[in-house]
Amino acid sequence: MALAHTTHQTDPMTETESIEYDVVVLGAGPVGENVADRTRAAGLSTAVVESELVGGECSYWACMPSKALLRPVIARADARRVPGLRRSVRGPLDAPEVLAHRDEYTSHWQDDGQVRWLDGIGADLHRGHGRLSGARTVTVTGADGERRVLTARHAVAVCTGSRALLPDLPGLADVGPWTSREATSAQTVPGRLVVVGGGVVAAEMATAWQALGAQVTVLVRGKGLLGRMEPFAGELVAEALEEAGADVRTGTSVESVSRENGTVVVVTGAGDRVEADEILFATGRAPRTDDIGLDTVGLAPGSWLDVDDSLRVTGHDWLYAVGDVNRRALLTHQGKYQARIAGAAIAARATGETLRAQAWGAHAATADHAAVPQVVFTDPEAAAVGLSLAEAEQAGHRVRAVDVDLSSVAGAGLYGDGYRGRARMVVDVEDEILRGVTFVGPGVGELIHSATVAVAGRVPVSRLWHAVPSYPTISEVWLRLLEAYRDN
Amino acid sequence: MALAHTTHQTDPMTETESIEYDVVVLGAGPVGENVADRTRAAGLSTAVVESELVGGECSYWACMPSKALLRPVIARADARRVPGLRRSVRGPLDAPEVLAHRDEYTSHWQDDGQVRWLDGIGADLHRGHGRLSGARTVTVTGADGERRVLTARHAVAVCTGSRALLPDLPGLADVGPWTSREATSAQTVPGRLVVVGGGVVAAEMATAWQALGAQVTVLVRGKGLLGRMEPFAGELVAEALEEAGADVRTGTSVESVSRENGTVVVVTGAGDRVEADEILFATGRAPRTDDIGLDTVGLAPGSWLDVDDSLRVTGHDWLYAVGDVNRRALLTHQGKYQARIAGAAIAARATGETLRAQAWGAHAATADHAAVPQVVFTDPEAAAVGLSLAEAEQAGHRVRAVDVDLSSVAGAGLYGDGYRGRARMVVDVEDEILRGVTFVGPGVGELIHSATVAVAGRVPVSRLWHAVPSYPTISEVWLRLLEAYRDN
Repeated sequence: MALAHTTHQTDPMTETESIEYDVVVLGAGPVGENVADRTRAAGLSTAVVESELVGGECSYWACMPSKALLRPVIARADARRVPGLRRSVRGPLDAPEVLAHRDEYTSHWQDDGQVRWLDGIGADLHRGHGRLSGARTVTVTGADGERRVLTARHAVAVCTGSRALLPDLPGLADVGPWTSREATSAQTVPGRLVVVGGGVVAAEMATAWQALGAQVTVLVRGKGLLGRMEPFAGELVAEALEEAGADVRTGTSVESVSRENGTVVVVTGAGDRVEADEILFATGRAPRTDDIGLDTVGLAPGSWLDVDDSLRVTGHDWLYAVGDVNRRALLTHQGKYQARIAGAAIAARATGETLRAQAWGAHAATADHAAVPQVVFTDPEAAAVGLSLAEAEQAGHRVRAVDVDLSSVAGAGLYGDGYRGRARMVVDVEDEILRGVTFVGPGVGELIHSATVAVAGRVPVSRLWHAVPSYPTISEVWLRLLEAYRDN
Repeated sequence: MALAHTTHQTDPMTETESIEYDVVVLGAGPVGENVADRTRAAGLSTAVVESELVGGECSYWACMPSKALLRPVIARADARRVPGLRRSVRGPLDAPEVLAHRDEYTSHWQDDGQVRWLDGIGADLHRGHGRLSGARTVTVTGADGERRVLTARHAVAVCTGSRALLPDLPGLADVGPWTSREATSAQTVPGRLVVVGGGVVAAEMATAWQALGAQVTVLVRGKGLLGRMEPFAGELVAEALEEAGADVRTGTSVESVSRENGTVVVVTGAGDRVEADEILFATGRAPRTDDIGLDTVGLAPGSWLDVDDSLRVTGHDWLYAVGDVNRRALLTHQGKYQARIAGAAIAARATGETLRAQAWGAHAATADHAAVPQVVFTDPEAAAVGLSLAEAEQAGHRVRAVDVDLSSVAGAGLYGDGYRGRARMVVDVEDEILRGVTFVGPGVGELIHSATVAVAGRVPVSRLWHAVPSYPTISEVWLRLLEAYRDN
């Protein structure tokens, strides 16, 4: 189908094949796949270029394997808090079975299924390293060194994502450090694991490997875990990690790392020595834009790409940057959201359709500014959408925050004995619209979408009183939040 | 505090004490408690009359004990679907521990805590049987036969709820049948239990007692379980009940019931004989209005009470009927919602404040018509809000329904191996507002509130595209629903 709209040429001098498409997508992760899905649905011929596995980081080295590792941990913790059940849950997790299941969920790092999907939507897959080579042009170099030039009548979408950023420590490469890739794909459980960092990857991987049998030490430079969420999120997760047997050290930097007779030796800024079998650096992400030919179109290699709300790169009417590369929100689901919007915007511009670029329009990724959700799959789960109180205040909004202890909610106590959790709602006092909501506690992962609908839907507090939570669910925390806002 | 606004008198002839309040509430279940909470918050003196336990049906013989029985069942089923965990969950539930925990959750059928709460808000509790004895007047007869007359300056709120309705079968009383009360408070697990009925109580109690060790037979007169929800809800729950070992017989009526040498013998309409140790009738509810003096104010004893959206009884400007008695939605959470609104409306009328009675206003229980949520705590859970497709069509709305197989959602597959579930979204094609949403599957209980916010908030489909579900949660079913609506 796609070929109906493409034009093939071969340069007789260089024997370089040249193919013209409506759209060329760089990167076949979930973001690139979703851009292609939307441009194909609009009837635009679309090429997708991928140098590794179709399906991207998320399918093989991030969301999917990490959640396959974490779900058993969370389910076991939940079960052990339930009267009548807790004593029948015996022994630790079956780590080999968990790892085998994780392998299945990553299709054993084979992308046949995803390739079939791309084929099914009628996009052309070009395997190889894609680099911009001037406006509207991508040159693909295959594994065999063969080159093909793809030109785009309408748009090129950069969806190459991000990679783990390692700190600049002497000799680090010799240590063989784990990044998120190794942490999600390791085939055996290390005896001792040091996790450097305090963000989502650090918190989730510390939770998973500690439960799978490793002795985990977390070294956090800052004051606590999950620093971008409300402070109580990191506090509750750190508390639970310690109770699970992990050693969480905040305010701790890494001075040096080496491997001595197979053992990793970390020396902290305070001079403490920590030994381990493996070390994971979860210390940030860098855009995968260093070798995609950005210089050929006047952009700086290795930079994050600035875009407008249609995901179009500033100053280039044919170039889009979607997902992690634009640094708006480094989350698969938010990248997929951007992809749907970018694909629709590319299609609208290509066909002369009116662009609906107003806030919350079909061609504006407005939620990126106001309603980005995130669920951290730890025990307890931590989930948030929109702005934290600190972020809202920093943005100059006039807000009031109310907190509720989740253990006061009947549905929470029923969910698990000794339930510990907390919720916060940040309300803009000008129009009584929610700026942000955070839930931390067992079983709150599916709860956050109610807040996402409220925030993105701009449902005011007065109407939320009519959104009745079922008794007795944990969702009744909404009543407590509304009461706290009303009464305080 | 309340006494500051009350006036005491004693009739010298009858020695009957008479007390005047602003508001008299009949019934101290969650609904009565919430009415009193709101009228007290407005500074109105308030009496609450209760003949049984303060806290009502929900606290002692419904929601709380049933969910305390069901949570272990659901948690165990969930755990046994998780790789790495399932094999370490050994043996059946510890039934004595589950029952003991249920006893704790009902405070061993003592209401001290709830009495303290009433006291804390400054409401006066009058124990005894309350009956209307003319306009604005309630006569309370105590256990000792002593009578007190309570008069209400502003309003009487009837919050007496409902009771189980037993069928008219000869000799039924001699059998000692269970109703929802016995089913939630039984101290031992019967060897064999027959459940008559197919609604929520029947489905939940069949699920609980089968998992606690009883051999359960469900006799459903109609085509299936959960007949008020989308058809697939009852189908999935019945399928799971059968897999758990229960015998679910649809299209089966009860011809006769007797107890022979201690054994319950049921003969069905088809002439089949079913033996059991106990029999639960979950065959509907009747309003507890038969002995509350309705005749003294021109209303029919035993009838459901018609109300307007401020919960005021038609034709009586001082009489309110809140919760089950008005038959709008026989659900604790919806009764509490009505109670908040009725309490606020009573207060507004008493103080001369303008009534905000427009749709979705502070004094109109609009959600009763459009956005009643319900969660059935079975395995799988079944949750719905608003109208089913059949209800929407019957109401004359122009709607389109889209279905999604939940097993196609990554977060569902990660939640449990072999995940089975289904979702339906009913969209009004006139304005693209949701009329109803149903989710059936493990772990969907907390998911429904996202739909409740969407339905009550009248968030249109175009905006729901900006409410991004976190990857990989079960909430991503929203994307599949929106895609199905867009593409079909």
